[in-house]
Amino acid sequence: MLRPDRMTALLDLVFDRLRAPWRGRRRARAASPAIDADSLLTMARDVLVERSQSSGVGLARRMLDHYAALDDAGRLTFFEGLTRDFAPDPAAIESAWQAYRADPGPLSLAAVTRAAEPPRQELLRRLNQPPAATADLVGLRADLLPLLRDHPALAPLEEDLAHLLRSWFNRGFLMLRRIDWSSPADLLERIIRYEAVHSIGTWVELRDRLLPQDRRCYAFLHPAMPEEPLIFVEVALCAEIPGSIQTLLAPDREELPVDQARVAVFYSISNCQAGLAGISFGRFLIKQVVEDLSREFPALDTFVTLSPIPGLRRWLASQGEDDDLPPDLPATDPRAKARIALAARYVLSAKDRHERPLDPVARFHLGNGARVERLCWMGDTSAKGLAQSGGMMVNYLYDLATLEANHEAFAREGTVTAHPALSRLLREAASA
Amino acid sequence: MLRPDRMTALLDLVFDRLRAPWRGRRRARAASPAIDADSLLTMARDVLVERSQSSGVGLARRMLDHYAALDDAGRLTFFEGLTRDFAPDPAAIESAWQAYRADPGPLSLAAVTRAAEPPRQELLRRLNQPPAATADLVGLRADLLPLLRDHPALAPLEEDLAHLLRSWFNRGFLMLRRIDWSSPADLLERIIRYEAVHSIGTWVELRDRLLPQDRRCYAFLHPAMPEEPLIFVEVALCAEIPGSIQTLLAPDREELPVDQARVAVFYSISNCQAGLAGISFGRFLIKQVVEDLSREFPALDTFVTLSPIPGLRRWLASQGEDDDLPPDLPATDPRAKARIALAARYVLSAKDRHERPLDPVARFHLGNGARVERLCWMGDTSAKGLAQSGGMMVNYLYDLATLEANHEAFAREGTVTAHPALSRLLREAASA
Amino acid sequence: MLRPDRMTALLDLVFDRLRAPWRGRRRARAASPAIDADSLLTMARDVLVERSQSSGVGLARRMLDHYAALDDAGRLTFFEGLTRDFAPDPAAIESAWQAYRADPGPLSLAAVTRAAEPPRQELLRRLNQPPAATADLVGLRADLLPLLRDHPALAPLEEDLAHLLRSWFNRGFLMLRRIDWSSPADLLERIIRYEAVHSIGTWVELRDRLLPQDRRCYAFLHPAMPEEPLIFVEVALCAEIPGSIQTLLAPDREELPVDQARVAVFYSISNCQAGLAGISFGRFLIKQVVEDLSREFPALDTFVTLSPIPGLRRWLASQGEDDDLPPDLPATDPRAKARIALAARYVLSAKDRHERPLDPVARFHLGNGARVERLCWMGDTSAKGLAQSGGMMVNYLYDLATLEANHEAFAREGTVTAHPALSRLLREAASA
Amino acid sequence: MLRPDRMTALLDLVFDRLRAPWRGRRRARAASPAIDADSLLTMARDVLVERSQSSGVGLARRMLDHYAALDDAGRLTFFEGLTRDFAPDPAAIESAWQAYRADPGPLSLAAVTRAAEPPRQELLRRLNQPPAATADLVGLRADLLPLLRDHPALAPLEEDLAHLLRSWFNRGFLMLRRIDWSSPADLLERIIRYEAVHSIGTWVELRDRLLPQDRRCYAFLHPAMPEEPLIFVEVALCAEIPGSIQTLLAPDREELPVDQARVAVFYSISNCQAGLAGISFGRFLIKQVVEDLSREFPALDTFVTLSPIPGLRRWLASQGEDDDLPPDLPATDPRAKARIALAARYVLSAKDRHERPLDPVARFHLGNGARVERLCWMGDTSAKGLAQSGGMMVNYLYDLATLEANHEAFAREGTVTAHPALSRLLREAASA
Repeated sequence: MLRPDRMTALLDLVFDRLRAPWRGRRRARAASPAIDADSLLTMARDVLVERSQSSGVGLARRMLDHYAALDDAGRLTFFEGLTRDFAPDPAAIESAWQAYRADPGPLSLAAVTRAAEPPRQELLRRLNQPPAATADLVGLRADLLPLLRDHPALAPLEEDLAHLLRSWFNRGFLMLRRIDWSSPADLLERIIRYEAVHSIGTWVELRDRLLPQDRRCYAFLHPAMPEEPLIFVEVALCAEIPGSIQTLLAPDREELPVDQARVAVFYSISNCQAGLAGISFGRFLIKQVVEDLSREFPALDTFVTLSPIPGLRRWLASQGEDDDLPPDLPATDPRAKARIALAARYVLSAKDRHERPLDPVARFHLGNGARVERLCWMGDTSAKGLAQSGGMMVNYLYDLATLEANHEAFAREGTVTAHPALSRLLREAASA
Repeated sequence: MLRPDRMTALLDLVFDRLRAPWRGRRRARAASPAIDADSLLTMARDVLVERSQSSGVGLARRMLDHYAALDDAGRLTFFEGLTRDFAPDPAAIESAWQAYRADPGPLSLAAVTRAAEPPRQELLRRLNQPPAATADLVGLRADLLPLLRDHPALAPLEEDLAHLLRSWFNRGFLMLRRIDWSSPADLLERIIRYEAVHSIGTWVELRDRLLPQDRRCYAFLHPAMPEEPLIFVEVALCAEIPGSIQTLLAPDREELPVDQARVAVFYSISNCQAGLAGISFGRFLIKQVVEDLSREFPALDTFVTLSPIPGLRRWLASQGEDDDLPPDLPATDPRAKARIALAARYVLSAKDRHERPLDPVARFHLGNGARVERLCWMGDTSAKGLAQSGGMMVNYLYDLATLEANHEAFAREGTVTAHPALSRLLREAASA
Repeated sequence: MLRPDRMTALLDLVFDRLRAPWRGRRRARAASPAIDADSLLTMARDVLVERSQSSGVGLARRMLDHYAALDDAGRLTFFEGLTRDFAPDPAAIESAWQAYRADPGPLSLAAVTRAAEPPRQELLRRLNQPPAATADLVGLRADLLPLLRDHPALAPLEEDLAHLLRSWFNRGFLMLRRIDWSSPADLLERIIRYEAVHSIGTWVELRDRLLPQDRRCYAFLHPAMPEEPLIFVEVALCAEIPGSIQTLLAPDREELPVDQARVAVFYSISNCQAGLAGISFGRFLIKQVVEDLSREFPALDTFVTLSPIPGLRRWLASQGEDDDLPPDLPATDPRAKARIALAARYVLSAKDRHERPLDPVARFHLGNGARVERLCWMGDTSAKGLAQSGGMMVNYLYDLATLEANHEAFAREGTVTAHPALSRLLREAASA
Repeated sequence: MLRPDRMTALLDLVFDRLRAPWRGRRRARAASPAIDADSLLTMARDVLVERSQSSGVGLARRMLDHYAALDDAGRLTFFEGLTRDFAPDPAAIESAWQAYRADPGPLSLAAVTRAAEPPRQELLRRLNQPPAATADLVGLRADLLPLLRDHPALAPLEEDLAHLLRSWFNRGFLMLRRIDWSSPADLLERIIRYEAVHSIGTWVELRDRLLPQDRRCYAFLHPAMPEEPLIFVEVALCAEIPGSIQTLLAPDREELPVDQARVAVFYSISNCQAGLAGISFGRFLIKQVVEDLSREFPALDTFVTLSPIPGLRRWLASQGEDDDLPPDLPATDPRAKARIALAARYVLSAKDRHERPLDPVARFHLGNGARVERLCWMGDTSAKGLAQSGGMMVNYLYDLATLEANHEAFAREGTVTAHPALSRLLREAASA
């Protein structure tokens, strides 16, 4: 039997303690003297041929520190060098391939695999040897990603990095941790910084999201960079499904005694590491939190998000629907009702050129197997909410019993599952 | 600045706590109903095509549990299937290779890399997703290694496993932990079981190696299988370099006040995981322990091993030197002196067909950059010691100042560094 | 709401870590040069007048170290000196008392209190200032208690010590910790040493009591001497109430899946600190463990002991019942039945001169409010069991619903509660 | 050897974890229905006679919760009742005293001690049994202290409380913890709240005092109320003795690499618990921190405070020196020099009616054995600094080598030790 309390205790401990060495190192890094990208590429060649593991670690550390001191141009040169000089050797591939064709078999085929693996991968693995190196490589990918658009030839480097990071940030290595008001201040400082959905302005606002008994926050962390949350989710325990973020975050709201909670609301999910883009943990996180909360509060029967619809206004504009509806317009107003129907159409059926949901948040939750539960009129009347979606929000329902089936149907045929009322609304709108 | 005390604290914590879940799982595993190897290969194909990450994790867990229930024949069939059915597709390689030749460039070359990577690697990565899976994959490699001799065609599978394990057991992910008498009993139980050099018979013997202030033990552990030490080293703090293991481990010996310690003696180094053979941590461990002890006890000025010479008797026999010398023969006896000279020749200059030191322990320490310091007449008069080496032992010296240079000279030219007295002894013997 | 998981985590941590400093100190103590009891009494006077707190702490530490080096005679002299020289000053009492009588009031009465407090108490409080001193004072009381019989005049010193220890070992300061197979080896070593009821011969036997999922062990510890368990209880989770310790501890017994457990059996309770005799934690421990287990395993419906009847044979002898009945005599044999009836009479109604149950174990459990549930024929056929009670054991039932009422009835009127079958047995035997 | 790192690790852990249960309880307390002081006194009598320890604990918990709901008048009534009804019984004292006089001896004297101990003390000990009760009793004393001036008859109650708290907050039970930027946010929130000397306005200001490598903060905590710091000290590591708090706390100051630090400056010491007034830990804290820093940074050679002179302006006024000198007046200005000489006179020789230093901060540090090192002209130009002391501050030097001797001389003869330059200044001023 897994004992979640001990797991939690462990996670708390890991992350309370590993931080100091990691931080120390970054300070040291800043002090590294600048060397140019070409010298760095020479160091990279040395790292690859170094036979002493322990010297190799020192060399790798220095390389990462020097990398951190490069300017934009230096980084580009360095990336180009990695792509060019650390690619597989075509002659070696050719020779291995001919050998295979002459004598096909598992061993000769394995020789082709070896010849085709870029030395870059081994280089990156060696760069990952020193303490705290993993965070540096995540940072390196964060530097690289924005360059891909203008320098598509860097794609192989990015591919190798993603390949390795996916292996290192394996689900089995991630650790779920509850973040609360007794968490370390430096970790909380990062939560404030990384909150991407409903921003946190002050420590008092943060406390309001962590301290009340009807509020929770969970993050995934990785043992090799424990100071850095990878992704976190904020949860509200409610008596019923909430329709607006204003109510949820009102400073003067009443705290709900947890024994009256029936609904867990995921009201904010933030990815923290630009360098881990595309290496997704989100669905693992939500599923794990649903399971943990179910165990802790058996009375919870509904797990739901309160989500933004970031692309709605842009899409409405593309449909010629451009007018601002006032925040105090009641949901029963015909104009509100028409807008809700349009929003339902957007969330449920607008697709991008890959036939995926156009809205990125919808794409994520529907891909997880959630269903569209309800549209929330004026669910977010903040400036950002009004600008993105005219104030509309949406609840996605996470029902463990149907999650996998929904996910399968979505993955195989693009089927979007929705509350019957919404499907009906959509049909009526279509037939109108 | 790294703060080793906090690091230590963390390690203690990680390993005090993670154990319960891990143990729980193994219990569960035993209960898995048996399925045959072919069904398991079918599951493996499902794991590869599963698009839902979270379903994939469940499937992977079940696969590992079923694997654990296979018998020897089933395992062989399963390994053969993995080698055969999850190899790269030669047609895809051919096609990617032709595309590259038609239009050479980083992107078309990266496509060759992709085509040549065995799907097996992705399968193994996915198998590593569930909690505690890493230990299962280490176990799987432990099952596989002994089969290679009779089934060389399994080598590509072994290569893929080693490739991934090397990435996952990266130095940056390992954690050094001091093992002492307040360590968890279940961890200590494993230390007893894994001690490979000077076996530990009882808990009282174990306590004698852990509790006294002049004794230390350090292990590397990995966050994904924290219950299992990977490798550990036992250390004695001494006033001078010891010449025999009997003295070091005498039950009635006097404890040395640590402020009188000048020499740290590594008297036993044990690898614990058969499944991690060839993925070496040993030199990292010794180097780290040397650094940590230097910091803790600035008065230490000598770091040395007291090592067995496991191949000596066999080599002596090959030289026609077969007689047993009695343990009470003084080192000054001409026969003892002749034997010491021969042992020096064996340790310093006997080579295998790859021109590496013939003795495996010598190979390890010389490869690390240690130098041969002294031969110890009747250093180990246990039955095992007499049988392996006629009672001879050897001290290898770890001198941080010369370690890298020695290592380089050894790696480049096979140069073996030794104490001048030993080199002289060797020259005299040669000229005799 | 208390969160027991975090409490547990804390306890684990406290006791994993505090040990080193404590142990260090004891080592130091051994090295203290011997001084005689009179010099120690002089030091005691210095401790009392020392105005510098921090000098006082050093002085107190040295006093405790010197105390530890005293021989038996020295200790007696020292105790006599403490009793004689650090008693309240009768003249001061007289004067305070006259002042009170002249002008009765809260302030003049408080002055009497101050005059009547022995300076010894302040001395003992100051001796408790240095790190790890608490364990030394517990040890001092352990030295003192056996002397009281022959030196009744030492009672006031004992009274002062007990007074302070009762305050320091307050329930609010005690911490419950689960002891398991991943607990620190040095703590487990003490469990082996302190087990008073069914002795533990080897580490393997200990593991059999800690590792199986249907076995538990809990201890109270104190933050000021965390290396030392104060009291611990061993628990078996069973499908039904067990009637013999042989079955419970059989090396080849089947482990019970915990979801089938209905009964928690307290089969061994050991006080660990002779110096804390009479400062009882036992009932707190049992009550807390009952509550914790109820929360963890809601299916448990019965909490029961399997207890020895240590005084039975002696009492039987006093009743002229002296014969040994063979262990293989069935419980249905008339001789066995007669013996069971006598045992019931002993447990339920034999009283000492203070009208308390004659059997010390009965006294403890009945005082806690437990009821006598069942007598177990040949429940303990070990040499010790046969010698103490002719093999008989007894189950006491802890029913939270009636515990307080039973306790009240017992405390007020000496009423012993028993299972109706036992009460009937007793009546029948009486009328026979 | 004590291993301070393990101690630190422990402390971190204790205080990271124990908090949840404690906080939980306080929430519960708020919900207790109000009962009046007389009913509470009745409960108190029940607590005293309750023979069941575990019922007693529940009753005590309820009493404390009800106490927390009392208003000012209720509290006064309750305190008066405790003083009146739980005093020792004069008749019992008289009788014990007569028995002693009739037959003097240790036992009859001990009976007097027993008779003279107020039942109130036993009541308070029992109130301390439930979890988290200690904090409640500290709170109760905080409520009581301000009432003493107008209700001097409550003194015996206060005396009993102080007596017990002194025993429970024994130096041996206190734990030193480093507070840093990775400490739990709720603990840091309290540091902000309790900072009494140089107030902390925001979390950013707090970070500036905790995060830089040349800043430290240490607190004493107690295992029974781990959420609450008892006292804390803020430390700056400097290259030389600083003369102004402005420089020390300047937001844009340069961080000092710790290897260049020679001076540790205690620039703020705050007692946190009003209910522990007079139960002093301050000198233990400073001495311990001096020792710990010495070990961690062997290059530190000077330990010094930068302290306010809170009573200076008032005393100057009493001397007819009332004018405000401008903050930008140079220290070399004759008016500044005259003021410095007066301040020296105040700090070194102004006495209260008990012949103790008039300035409370001087009293504390001189009592600890520190010497007056230097007066700092315009060391604190904040509004508070100018108002209290016209901007003057003072450095007190903590020199472990002379601390005890200074303390002795001060305690015995009131001798104030000062830097020779200051003593000379004083003599010159006196002879002027």
